Amino acid sequence: MNLEAIFHRTGDNWCYMYDRDTVHIRIRTKRGDMERVDVYAGDKYDFEQTLQRIPMTVFASDALFDYWQAEVTTPHRRLQYYFGFTSGGRTIYMTEAGFMNEPPSGVTGVFEYPFLHESDMLDPPEWVKHAVFYQIFPERFANGDPSNDPENVEPWGGTPQPHNFFGGDLQGVIDHLDYLEELGVNAVYFTPIFEATTNHKYDTSDYKRVDPHFGDTETLQTLVKEAHKRGIRVLLDAVFNHSGGQFPPFLDVLEKGEQSPYKDWFHILDDPPRVVDGRPTYRAFAFEPHMPKLNTQHPEVKTYLLDVAKYWIEEVGIDGWRLDVANEVDHQFWREFRQTVKTVRPDAYILGEIWHDSMRWLRGDQFDAVMNYPFTYAVLDYFAHRTINAEQFSHRIYAQLAAYPQQVHEAAFNLLDSHDTPRLLTLMNGNKRRMKLAVLFQLTFLGTPCIYYGDEIGLDGGADPDCRKCMVWDREKQDRELFDFYRAAIRLRKSSAALRTGSFRFLKADAASDVILYERSDGEDQFIIALNNSEQAAEVTLPAPLSELTPVLTSASGTAEHAAVQTSEEHAAEQTSEQTSAEGTVQLEPYGYIIWKRQ
Amino acid sequence: MNLEAIFHRTGDNWCYMYDRDTVHIRIRTKRGDMERVDVYAGDKYDFEQTLQRIPMTVFASDALFDYWQAEVTTPHRRLQYYFGFTSGGRTIYMTEAGFMNEPPSGVTGVFEYPFLHESDMLDPPEWVKHAVFYQIFPERFANGDPSNDPENVEPWGGTPQPHNFFGGDLQGVIDHLDYLEELGVNAVYFTPIFEATTNHKYDTSDYKRVDPHFGDTETLQTLVKEAHKRGIRVLLDAVFNHSGGQFPPFLDVLEKGEQSPYKDWFHILDDPPRVVDGRPTYRAFAFEPHMPKLNTQHPEVKTYLLDVAKYWIEEVGIDGWRLDVANEVDHQFWREFRQTVKTVRPDAYILGEIWHDSMRWLRGDQFDAVMNYPFTYAVLDYFAHRTINAEQFSHRIYAQLAAYPQQVHEAAFNLLDSHDTPRLLTLMNGNKRRMKLAVLFQLTFLGTPCIYYGDEIGLDGGADPDCRKCMVWDREKQDRELFDFYRAAIRLRKSSAALRTGSFRFLKADAASDVILYERSDGEDQFIIALNNSEQAAEVTLPAPLSELTPVLTSASGTAEHAAVQTSEEHAAEQTSEQTSAEGTVQLEPYGYIIWKRQ
Repeated sequence: MNLEAIFHRTGDNWCYMYDRDTVHIRIRTKRGDMERVDVYAGDKYDFEQTLQRIPMTVFASDALFDYWQAEVTTPHRRLQYYFGFTSGGRTIYMTEAGFMNEPPSGVTGVFEYPFLHESDMLDPPEWVKHAVFYQIFPERFANGDPSNDPENVEPWGGTPQPHNFFGGDLQGVIDHLDYLEELGVNAVYFTPIFEATTNHKYDTSDYKRVDPHFGDTETLQTLVKEAHKRGIRVLLDAVFNHSGGQFPPFLDVLEKGEQSPYKDWFHILDDPPRVVDGRPTYRAFAFEPHMPKLNTQHPEVKTYLLDVAKYWIEEVGIDGWRLDVANEVDHQFWREFRQTVKTVRPDAYILGEIWHDSMRWLRGDQFDAVMNYPFTYAVLDYFAHRTINAEQFSHRIYAQLAAYPQQVHEAAFNLLDSHDTPRLLTLMNGNKRRMKLAVLFQLTFLGTPCIYYGDEIGLDGGADPDCRKCMVWDREKQDRELFDFYRAAIRLRKSSAALRTGSFRFLKADAASDVILYERSDGEDQFIIALNNSEQAAEVTLPAPLSELTPVLTSASGTAEHAAVQTSEEHAAEQTSEQTSAEGTVQLEPYGYIIWKRQ
Repeated sequence: MNLEAIFHRTGDNWCYMYDRDTVHIRIRTKRGDMERVDVYAGDKYDFEQTLQRIPMTVFASDALFDYWQAEVTTPHRRLQYYFGFTSGGRTIYMTEAGFMNEPPSGVTGVFEYPFLHESDMLDPPEWVKHAVFYQIFPERFANGDPSNDPENVEPWGGTPQPHNFFGGDLQGVIDHLDYLEELGVNAVYFTPIFEATTNHKYDTSDYKRVDPHFGDTETLQTLVKEAHKRGIRVLLDAVFNHSGGQFPPFLDVLEKGEQSPYKDWFHILDDPPRVVDGRPTYRAFAFEPHMPKLNTQHPEVKTYLLDVAKYWIEEVGIDGWRLDVANEVDHQFWREFRQTVKTVRPDAYILGEIWHDSMRWLRGDQFDAVMNYPFTYAVLDYFAHRTINAEQFSHRIYAQLAAYPQQVHEAAFNLLDSHDTPRLLTLMNGNKRRMKLAVLFQLTFLGTPCIYYGDEIGLDGGADPDCRKCMVWDREKQDRELFDFYRAAIRLRKSSAALRTGSFRFLKADAASDVILYERSDGEDQFIIALNNSEQAAEVTLPAPLSELTPVLTSASGTAEHAAVQTSEEHAAEQTSEQTSAEGTVQLEPYGYIIWKRQ
């Protein structure tokens, strides 16, 4: 046995409350090293009498490790436990104190999850698990009110530059809520809408004022009300890491330096605050002089920003906050932020922008979820850049599943592109068929998928500012086939909880071929999904006889009408042109896909 | 290379702020597997320009792993990093995304410590690192005021039973503060002193009243004032996990059941609350009916207990709280507790009673330290139970050093026994010479050592209630030789910061002999400590010529006078009877010890 490979530490992804009564216990071992792993668990104060052996199962594997999990319940809400590993007829045991040949004789040194408290449980809002998000960059979505356009507004559809404006606004969004409803999304994330000098508004001048080029508080109220009427939630962007250069407290510091009552609101390194050789003498986002970093450790700054967080929930009824540059703000601030926000709105969604491993923010005291860029990278590396094969893709996905508690994945914000990246179609070199595979993976995975505005009608664009093109509203110029594909895939996702919160398992993902097969399943429904990420047709063997499988979404027929969710097996069989055999194998066309629902 | 053995995850003991400007980065590898490990670190927004390679060093090793550490500073308070491992002429690299043969080409997927915030740093009070604690069980320490004795008081020195009383009180402690000063301790931890029915007072009836058998608020005020005059800090015991059975809110629930306004202050499983087959129908500490578990998630309970925490700091000026059964209370409660306590007293010591791995409480948002029972077990297993050899002992100590950030060890509460365990002398089967070795290890290790009252004058006792005997005040009946040993060892510890906060390193700890040799060192001083944990005399080779080493505490002379801290090398050389050779080797008598200070 490779003992060095084993890792477990109570807490985080290794031992956590999944729900009020259930603890998930996990451990990693070297891949293929163990025949069985058991967890022995009991109550601390009655260990001998309550001790039970619970077999663990491998729920994920990557190139190096198997990840084992067991679900444990406990009548007294207290848990002590140790592990047993069996291989080659030998069993060894592990406690906090290390490995031993015999089970521990008492409770000294065993692992402990001392008490199950709901207050310590990571418990994201239920609605998030069932949402499909749509990201809107307001300056580029729709111009509903030309009267509030900036002076230097350019004609809609021009080339985006770092500093130009096209007049998009909140009225434009209100005008197109029917469009969002048609697409099927039920939540919108807006990049910042508060007063700022730039087109992206990440340099706030007034946290309590809607940018006048976007509208006013009343417009926002209308927008939220109209969205809610359609069952669409609204998430705003909180830029609390830094303010804009025109934020009055910062202007005061610029003017008065050390004499300003706001001097401790920022991190002034050398007074007077100024820019030397292109770099500010105060801390800033990156080294951007017009984005001075706020000192979120300062009590007045906390009071100010927490009031802002509360204000927009109470004033217009937003459903949560996306937190910009969330990882560069202190954890203590976010703990107080959570307390504030959840007090006024218990089911608010708190979503952090973090591009890397985010366990430290997902322990129940800070965020509900993060923007899941590690997911993005894995999907893009496989479907877009094609730098990894199917097996490696499965390893990346499994390693992520193992890295967080299950509820993190159920509420993760899974995006494929955003205002900070090139657009999906461009990342795919314009190959719409491969793009669809990536989108299907996103829409049939755990977590809340987010579609970047315009992707669904074929908008392309390279890195910022090119990824911030104006939305195309002329139906003739929209890719309606792509729109219908999105709509059908979203409808399918919404048709069954299994596709949202069901278990996930790869059935086939190997180095030999670029066809992946995976399963989503809950107590109600089971789906089998086949994606052929290659330009060759491929045959794939299914884990069930075809007679039990109803294709509900396929690439074969090419139109949205055909790809829509099927309810009748016969009907579906007619519609699909795949070659099927009696032995439960099917042909997939190049870049083809089939999603089956099992009877 | 054994890649499966490698573990690193940003945060906790693996990557943390050690002080305002310094981050410690650590990683584990299979023992002996790597020739070198480097960490490559730079600023997120200027990675190429700021990237530096920092060699890591092995600071601890156990049976399976080497633990490597590097200290990193960063001008912009932001850090991104990855690792390089070299062995057999081959170098591989590791980011968050896994292993690769070439260094990562950009910052995507590298590890990130996004910003150094002081508000997120675990920063225990400075005084704690320099304290020597003394634990007092007030009912058994001294009876200073017979007028407040319980009715059924028994004569001082009788046999402790679960429910008998001997009349110890706070006036008794006041009367013996000179004794504590003579011993040299500078902090006292009291088990509970608030009104309760038992002799141990872990069943609080009134959190705002000193138990009338112990005195009153005024007595406590005098005690704290007099202690502070002598430079002695005072820590009280907060029993917040559960109340006593006579706590008025619980009595109200017993009386009114579901109708009581206090029903949610507890965890009632079946109304009316009662005891069925010896088990309460409400949650309790263990299954003790007279210790009903408080619902610390309930806002009113929080308000009540946080007020108590604040009250005694403000009212009598205590220096901190020891938190009973701390791990069974929710983290969220402790976060609010910390905010409350640190607001009224920033340098208060918050010490949790946790017997196992405690990383989850030591992230800066909850406790300053925990009762370090894993340390206790390691020392006892080696010096008392003798179930492990010197090498295994070093592995246990090193594994603990690797398991926490450095500052955790600097403020850890290192006890060898307590009111919850048999006494040290009894654990040693009465062998005082072995007992001294354990005490010396405790007093020359990182962290704040705690002496259980009476250990220093030879009090013995088995498990509770036997470990709660009355203190012996008749000097003739005290072991004064042992007292003088304690006093000398404490004085030595207080003489140099190197013995408190200096680095720790084993110089010799192998399976072949029971002599351990280790070093404590800082920029100022260096100490070499040799402990012979065997009944055979032993020879040990020193890492420096004897001419550079001054013995400052040795077992040889047998009396406190001789064992006191020596200031002159010549004087010390006369006093010690160890055989010394020119080659830097010395003889240690059975169970002998020598502590040298290096010139």
